[in-house]
Amino acid sequence: MAHSLLARYPWVASPFVVSAPMKVMSGPALAVAVSRAGGLGFIGPGAKTQDTTNDLEKASTLIANTIPTTSALPVGVGYQLWADDVGIAVAAIEKYKPCAVWLYAPKQGSQDYNDWSSRIRKASPETQIWIQIGTLKEAKQLLQLSESPDVVVVQGAESGGHGRANDSMGLMSLFPEVADVMASSRIPLFAAGGIADGRGLAAAMCLGASGAVMGTRFLAASEARISRGYQDEVVRASDGAVSTTRTLLYNHLRGTFGWPEEYSPRTIVNQSYVEQQQGKSFEELKVLHDEAAKAGDEGWGPTGRLATYAGASVGLIHDVKNAGDIVRETRNGALERLQQLFPHKN
Amino acid sequence: MAHSLLARYPWVASPFVVSAPMKVMSGPALAVAVSRAGGLGFIGPGAKTQDTTNDLEKASTLIANTIPTTSALPVGVGYQLWADDVGIAVAAIEKYKPCAVWLYAPKQGSQDYNDWSSRIRKASPETQIWIQIGTLKEAKQLLQLSESPDVVVVQGAESGGHGRANDSMGLMSLFPEVADVMASSRIPLFAAGGIADGRGLAAAMCLGASGAVMGTRFLAASEARISRGYQDEVVRASDGAVSTTRTLLYNHLRGTFGWPEEYSPRTIVNQSYVEQQQGKSFEELKVLHDEAAKAGDEGWGPTGRLATYAGASVGLIHDVKNAGDIVRETRNGALERLQQLFPHKN
Repeated sequence: MAHSLLARYPWVASPFVVSAPMKVMSGPALAVAVSRAGGLGFIGPGAKTQDTTNDLEKASTLIANTIPTTSALPVGVGYQLWADDVGIAVAAIEKYKPCAVWLYAPKQGSQDYNDWSSRIRKASPETQIWIQIGTLKEAKQLLQLSESPDVVVVQGAESGGHGRANDSMGLMSLFPEVADVMASSRIPLFAAGGIADGRGLAAAMCLGASGAVMGTRFLAASEARISRGYQDEVVRASDGAVSTTRTLLYNHLRGTFGWPEEYSPRTIVNQSYVEQQQGKSFEELKVLHDEAAKAGDEGWGPTGRLATYAGASVGLIHDVKNAGDIVRETRNGALERLQQLFPHKN
Repeated sequence: MAHSLLARYPWVASPFVVSAPMKVMSGPALAVAVSRAGGLGFIGPGAKTQDTTNDLEKASTLIANTIPTTSALPVGVGYQLWADDVGIAVAAIEKYKPCAVWLYAPKQGSQDYNDWSSRIRKASPETQIWIQIGTLKEAKQLLQLSESPDVVVVQGAESGGHGRANDSMGLMSLFPEVADVMASSRIPLFAAGGIADGRGLAAAMCLGASGAVMGTRFLAASEARISRGYQDEVVRASDGAVSTTRTLLYNHLRGTFGWPEEYSPRTIVNQSYVEQQQGKSFEELKVLHDEAAKAGDEGWGPTGRLATYAGASVGLIHDVKNAGDIVRETRNGALERLQQLFPHKN
């Protein structure tokens, strides 16, 4: 890992573990717990951009100088560019100075990235710009930005939540190809998608990553801002290849519209999806969904109907743990694996 | 890697590199060159099962005791169970005693595996049984076989040629989940799909693999039994996520029918696929395909129409090399990566 990268995040232990900015579910408690354990925690986008500002305030209070750092706040924050208000976001960044801002899903690719990045850097020079991509084409576009990102996250097809709809690929092929194209930029790359333990972190590093981002694993963290029914389902589900799929159905059932068409979320399938495949109309599914939403935690699970965004790594997750334990076990798992594989010269 | 595994293949150097049994294209010259370089080369299925017998005869002549080994022939051989004749295959295995037989794509899952395995073991006790799977469900079925395989190859969605049609997943999530389910069996696992260099091999080992299988990388080996036009296209293609797709179209254009419905091949897309997506009829595409087939090497490439089965790793392959160099560079690349990442204790 580049020495300069760790220098920007002085509380982070190697290998570098990051918790993804999952919308609403990555709240300040989760982000702070991850950073406190020597990872880098990201606060996710809120239902409204102002909610994220409130989360930064809470994180700032929670941290209260308990994590040794530079002048920046030792948590990051994520925004969805197509949906978030850049003015509100930049005001929050200027006030709270998060160490990193994660930009994703622009409406107008390069233009949005340059605009957000230049405004963020003016407001908070100590804040690093992270951009998440999922294709080689995006990697090439990043190389042309006037405002070059500090870190690029490469998301594979295994990922949960929103990822590329039709042009994604597993990290095993995607990551090294992106790494080769971006090598000359010397921008550190992180791997995201399908990673849930130290094996995946070590594998990502072998592919060229400076560290790994985990989302789904942290849905089963005790600090996640998530309903019990949803979290139970992440723990229960296995065989991610068939128990999850990419579909816009659950966005639409929840009334979420407007994502740029390049994106589609991976979710654990349940009755809503099964019955859609069987031909039930959206109108019928919507009525049943809204009834299920009133049922609370019973609304999730194989016979449930509520959105359960999660990645293909669900089968690697068997329990709810403290975020700090997840960070430490992932880091130690990767170290142990690399030590076991170390080729002793004869 | 299990010591007992390497003991079965005494000429193999660690980390363990395998060339996949690609139909027709993995001929005896390729398989022998891979084993000669300290890997394990597999001869692929032929157009007819008898062709494979002839390939084993050629490999046996080529080797002529030049590779230090046990009593078994230091190359493997692959069969497609739905298409190959078990009687002809077992007779060849009895005569040539390949060190490993790779079984794939049965019509009747467990029954076919047990039948082939018991007959092979009776005919050639020194031959090890390798079985390739692509799903967690298959992994669980293997655990119930009366004839337990010696090695299991776990193929991810990134793979080229025939893989799972609708229930595959990238290795980053699939492999560790399969490894956990199979851990109690202590059967060594190999990773296949999307791996084309030492980074992928090292990553696979971190996920728990005893070694890696590469197919597409060896299509661009000088010893591959492949048309120049096809090979040039593997070298040319990049951005495997969008330049390749799974489709049955090319099988059907070539007159190949009968694969069990669970399987579908990944191929580099060209005019046949593009025009199918635009609505051109199969009959028209077939006429154009057959004309292109007469054009020889011009029939491949972006404006070509011929089947170009290949994996999502095409973007990592930039030149044709000797198979021995591919094996050595992959192995050394993995060793270097693992040495770089070795966590020195403070």
